[in-house]
Formats: sequence, C-alpha cells, structure tokens
Amino acid sequence: MQLAIAGLGLIGGSIALAARERLGARVVGWDPDPGAVAAAERLGVIADGAGSLASAVAGADAVLAAAPVGALPALVAELLAQASEGCVVTDVGSAKGSLCEAVSDPRFVGGHPLAGAETSGVANARADMFDGAVWYLTPSAASSRAALERVRELVCGLGAEPVEVGAGEHDRLMATVSHLPHVFANVLVGQLAGLDAAARPGPSFRDATRVAGSNSAIWSGIYLENRVALGAAVDDAIARLEQVRALLVSADSVALARWCEQAAADRARLER
Amino acid sequence: MQLAIAGLGLIGGSIALAARERLGARVVGWDPDPGAVAAAERLGVIADGAGSLASAVAGADAVLAAAPVGALPALVAELLAQASEGCVVTDVGSAKGSLCEAVSDPRFVGGHPLAGAETSGVANARADMFDGAVWYLTPSAASSRAALERVRELVCGLGAEPVEVGAGEHDRLMATVSHLPHVFANVLVGQLAGLDAAARPGPSFRDATRVAGSNSAIWSGIYLENRVALGAAVDDAIARLEQVRALLVSADSVALARWCEQAAADRARLER
Repeated sequence: MQLAIAGLGLIGGSIALAARERLGARVVGWDPDPGAVAAAERLGVIADGAGSLASAVAGADAVLAAAPVGALPALVAELLAQASEGCVVTDVGSAKGSLCEAVSDPRFVGGHPLAGAETSGVANARADMFDGAVWYLTPSAASSRAALERVRELVCGLGAEPVEVGAGEHDRLMATVSHLPHVFANVLVGQLAGLDAAARPGPSFRDATRVAGSNSAIWSGIYLENRVALGAAVDDAIARLEQVRALLVSADSVALARWCEQAAADRARLER
Repeated sequence: MQLAIAGLGLIGGSIALAARERLGARVVGWDPDPGAVAAAERLGVIADGAGSLASAVAGADAVLAAAPVGALPALVAELLAQASEGCVVTDVGSAKGSLCEAVSDPRFVGGHPLAGAETSGVANARADMFDGAVWYLTPSAASSRAALERVRELVCGLGAEPVEVGAGEHDRLMATVSHLPHVFANVLVGQLAGLDAAARPGPSFRDATRVAGSNSAIWSGIYLENRVALGAAVDDAIARLEQVRALLVSADSVALARWCEQAAADRARLER
C-alpha cells in the first residue's frame, strides 16, 4: 500500500510512523514547510519526501490531509484534484461540518482521531499515538461505501477504533468533549495569572489546565471552524455557572449538595 | 511525639501513616464513626483508637482536625477546649477565612495541604500523600509564633512544603486554583450527560473532569464555606466565557488567535 500524507506535524508524522511499522505501507510525505519534509525524512518518519502535492499523491492508494482545520478545505480539494480514481482521501480535522458539506466527492470520507499531545511537530511523532483511540469517521451522503470501508480499515490498522457519526453531531459532541475543555483551561490560567498572589497550583488545577495555551494557530482555527456548536456549548456552560452562582449567593447547602450529587451521577452515567 | 488526629478519612489517615513512618510519632485517632476508628487500628494507620475526643487529645503534643470544612469550627473549638496548654492545634480544611476569624487561641494555626485523590476513606490512606505538596499555613493575628513554628516543623516532617499565607488570600487563591476547577469539571460532565450522543470522551475531557462528582458531602461544604471568593471567581469565569462567546459570534480569527496566545503566555508565566 502507498500512503500519501499532506502535513507532517505531530499527527501526520504519527500516522506515517504507524502506517510504516504496522501496515508496512510505503509513506510519501509533503508539507508546505520544506524543513518539515526534510526532518521527517531524516527521522525515518516517511520513506520519501515529495516536493509538491502532485508528486506526493501520484500512485497513492490513500491520502491523508493532516493540516490545521482552516487549511483543510483548500488542501482536500487539491488532493482530490490530484488523486487517481481509485484513491481514497481523508483528513484529521477536529471540526467536520463545513468541510464535509463543502466536499461532494465519493472518494472523500472525513475523519478525526481523538489523539494528540501538548507537544507538536514531527520530531514528537509516535507510532503508538492512536492505540485504542476513538477515530471518528464522518462520511457524507456523497461518500462511497467502498471509500468508507477503506478508510475504516486504514484507521484500524493504525491501532485506532473507528466510530461513524454525522459531521454535525461530531461537531456538537467535540464542542463539549474537547473544545470547551480547552476553553475552560484557557480561562483558568487567565484567572490565576490575573491574581496577585503567588500561585501554587494543586493537582486539580494542573489536570484542568493540561491543555491550556495549546498551539494557537491550530486551536484558533478549530474554535473558528466549530464556532456555532462551540458557541452553544459556551452558552450552556454560562447558564450552568449562573445556576451555581445562585446557589452560592443563597448559601443553600441542600441544593449545593444536590448539585454535587448530580455531577457524581452524571459522571457515573458517562463511565458506564 | 504524640499526635492526635480527629477525623480518620483519606487525609487524616494519610497524616497518621506519614507521622508514624517518618516522625516515629505515636498517633492516637478519633472519628465520629467508630467503624473508621476500628478500620484505622486494624490497618495499622494509628497506634490507638480513642473512644472520645477528650481521650484522643489527652497527652498530645499536637492535634490535627481532619474533618469536612462544615464540621471544623465546632470540632476545633472542642479540641482547643480539651488540649493542654503546650499543645498546638491545626486543621486541614480547604477554606480558611471563617474558621481562622472565629478562632482566637494562640495554640491554633490553620492549615491546608494541597493533596488528595479521587478515592476516599482511611483504607486508601498513603504515607506519601504529601510528598512535595504545598501545605498552606494561615496563622491569624492570635496565633503564637511558637505554635506556627511547631506546625511548620510537623508539616515538613510529613513531606510537604509549608507556605504561609493570609486566610483571606488563601480562600481567594483556592477559589481559582481548586474550587473553580471542580465546578468546571461538574459543569462538563453535566453538559456531556445532557447530550443525546453516544459520548466518547477524549483525553482533554478526561483530564478536565478527573475531579468531577467528588465526594458531595465534602465538596458542598467547601463550596458553601468559600462561597464569597468562589462566587467572585465564578463571576470572573462567566465574564471571560462571554468574551470568548463574542469572539466566536463575530468569527474574529485574529482576536481568537490573540486569545489563544494570551493563554499560552499566562500558562508560561504560571510555570515560571
């Protein structure tokens, strides 16, 4: 199998490593930054670096677009224009709605692995990045069943668990499961940095802010791309915080205890 | 040294274990629940269980109150009434303002270790619970310097790092560093549980909600006790979320990127 990867960052590099080690794939890589291509070759992450998108895609059975979400619509369109009839194209973007609406090619299936790290760049790529991770697949009405099957096989081969979901539902889910936790983390570091006190964060703060200040180019793109669903999730969060605020103002110990118990029940339900 | 511990839960039990192993202290324990006393004796967490507060405190050089915050004012008052002239009394409550205002005894110094776990109960106690942890000390104007020094030595002996701070500043800091992250965690599990979707939390959600649904009896007491500072922190969080909401509505990519960069700078400043 020949795999082309467009975008040699942490995720693209990790897909390349896993595909080489686990699938025995020949991986050709391209990146708008020639330095990233050279690094990926030097580190043995890819077999060959390509000087252009067209040469990366030539002869590929599957193409992965691993760029920041804002760059994906143009990149995926160009990949589809270059790819052969029998080639499948997928991506790893964290927001799927507008991309999957814009693309109506049977060879394309949107994708999104729930993986990553605080690190970035191809030098931090790891072959085991996707082991046991959920990898959402968001086929549109235009996607062919054959393309979906092939992307599903690829994702399984990389160690992940493919989960099929509509693009809109994916984005609403991600707004709560990933994007809002990132917003909360940024809010928390902002609040603590704003205090005069010599701050000594404890374990709950450290865990809650592990993803604070994540790569701004990537994350501002994700927030922008998923602004509708994330905006709704932020509104819901504000409404819930205002409820807590009211319980605190009224010093209502019974209602506060009930609120805590509801959270324990919600958590137990999510872990079932 | 003889140490009395009133309250044999996760924290009280861990203090007992650390005091026995590291300070060679004789530890006498009391708990309103006789079952907890029996368990602590059986597990070797304490040398002797006491049938009453008075017998626990008799002969002690230091007394630790390790009860939920709502129970601390009455407990500390009774401990001081029973303790000898030369004995020091401290506590481990997560909110310090009202307790430290209410107590005006030179033998008392408020305390709060930044430690804990999702587990609870004496069976989960660990001697290394406080290793390297910040342990806030909040002496009031009434606290004697000698008492402060002895509590500081005790805390160091348990493996923690004592950090002296005013009770009010402690509470404002904790509102942001610990109590608000717990509120955020509860809000997140509530939002996700409210979605119809088959939720598959990723790593950022799991970290952000590690403390969701924490022991409701303990945490509703903490929220109530620190309701003024926590209410202000919640207000500040709502204001920050409304700013993010406005950036999303206006689809302002430059401002969103600036907001992400500010979070990265805040985080870097906190880690300095």
